[in-house]
Amino acid sequence: MSRYVFGRNAVQGSLQAEGKKALRLYIQKGGKDAEAVGLEARGLRIPVEVKDKGWFDKLAKNSPHQGLCLELPDFPYLSIEELLAKAKGKDSCLLLMLDQIEDPHNLGAIARSAEASGAVGIVIPQDRSVQVTPIAEKAASGALSMVPVAKVVNISRALEQAKKAGFWVYGLDGDAKDDLFKEKLEGKVCLVLGAEGKGLREGVTKHCDKLLRIPMAGKTASLNVSVAGGVAMFEVVRQRYYAGKP
Amino acid sequence: MSRYVFGRNAVQGSLQAEGKKALRLYIQKGGKDAEAVGLEARGLRIPVEVKDKGWFDKLAKNSPHQGLCLELPDFPYLSIEELLAKAKGKDSCLLLMLDQIEDPHNLGAIARSAEASGAVGIVIPQDRSVQVTPIAEKAASGALSMVPVAKVVNISRALEQAKKAGFWVYGLDGDAKDDLFKEKLEGKVCLVLGAEGKGLREGVTKHCDKLLRIPMAGKTASLNVSVAGGVAMFEVVRQRYYAGKP
Repeated sequence: MSRYVFGRNAVQGSLQAEGKKALRLYIQKGGKDAEAVGLEARGLRIPVEVKDKGWFDKLAKNSPHQGLCLELPDFPYLSIEELLAKAKGKDSCLLLMLDQIEDPHNLGAIARSAEASGAVGIVIPQDRSVQVTPIAEKAASGALSMVPVAKVVNISRALEQAKKAGFWVYGLDGDAKDDLFKEKLEGKVCLVLGAEGKGLREGVTKHCDKLLRIPMAGKTASLNVSVAGGVAMFEVVRQRYYAGKP
Repeated sequence: MSRYVFGRNAVQGSLQAEGKKALRLYIQKGGKDAEAVGLEARGLRIPVEVKDKGWFDKLAKNSPHQGLCLELPDFPYLSIEELLAKAKGKDSCLLLMLDQIEDPHNLGAIARSAEASGAVGIVIPQDRSVQVTPIAEKAASGALSMVPVAKVVNISRALEQAKKAGFWVYGLDGDAKDDLFKEKLEGKVCLVLGAEGKGLREGVTKHCDKLLRIPMAGKTASLNVSVAGGVAMFEVVRQRYYAGKP
């Protein structure tokens, strides 16, 4: 099975990150960016095929595709062991664990922020969670070709494995008593984000070393999960940055 | 013309924020949350009507609605003058200006962050920009019933008006040389966010007092606009928080 990435930004991001692995580029006849991206693909020796708008609309399920689609091999999920091995020997790094995120736009936006904040990877559960879909890859603007994603049977067990690997596990929780901005987020940091609307499950919070909340100044009880994740990831970046380790 | 808000979180948020203005609540026959929200609405003397699933699917255009829909009067946009009047006399406050944001999910998520960070309001242009739609209100989880939105003909002119009202205008721009985390974001702060994928237009950056970038630690060039906005808004919150003015 192949996977398909749609849209200008996502296709260009994937071409840059894993262009050598791409199987085929599809461009829309007369498409605005078709020629430039087609040339880029040919330079990488990727076969280019012209399709009509209907083909794109159908495969992209009517989400915007800008007449560009890249066919790639199945998404190369890692095991949690392979992902944690990437953190080995590092003094400080950031790991994301997503518990039951449902919306592919959120997964994509989180992956984009994770890559941009230098995270070592993202962990998702195999069940009751969105997987890496074309919509997620589009929302990630190519970042899902750059940041590794591990798929696990059980998030709680993965949290325990991360702890053993030296990570300090922080769950983001609107009801937490500790404040994100008052916490020293140094060393190996694992951030756990819960489902849209529901937040972290009790079974998962039990496995966190600490729960943190983002201080809220209005009446709204919670942020969009990809925004909350972004705020927390860039608080880690900010603290590292000031410690001289951007 | 009425407007319609869909989904449990959005309907409950709107009921809390402007329940007195609501025209009607529609609940799905046998819906899981129908009874509880119906009772809440009846307590506010809002007429409740039962509809079948097909009615909801059609009006929500197949996006998730959880069998709940609240009918409200047309969205009460403010003028820029009315919005700036709300900032009058305040020592410090936060204002958002959105230039050509296209995706209603982004507008909704930004509104949610804006309300949560205590922003005085949001400014959007009347043309070439998403307006407050049911999808935006759903993504805002009720925040668009709480944070005022002004609609303007021209964003550049609105920026000049904000400056005259004492705001310091910061544009978020990935190519900026100044760093968000090194800036003292105090007093009256206006954050300007540009379109998805394109960022701020040159004509708009000219009207900013300063351009700021979020420092990026990976290869990704930019964040999702609602995530970038969230990071910037909560950096303002963080700085205020530590200055003893949460």
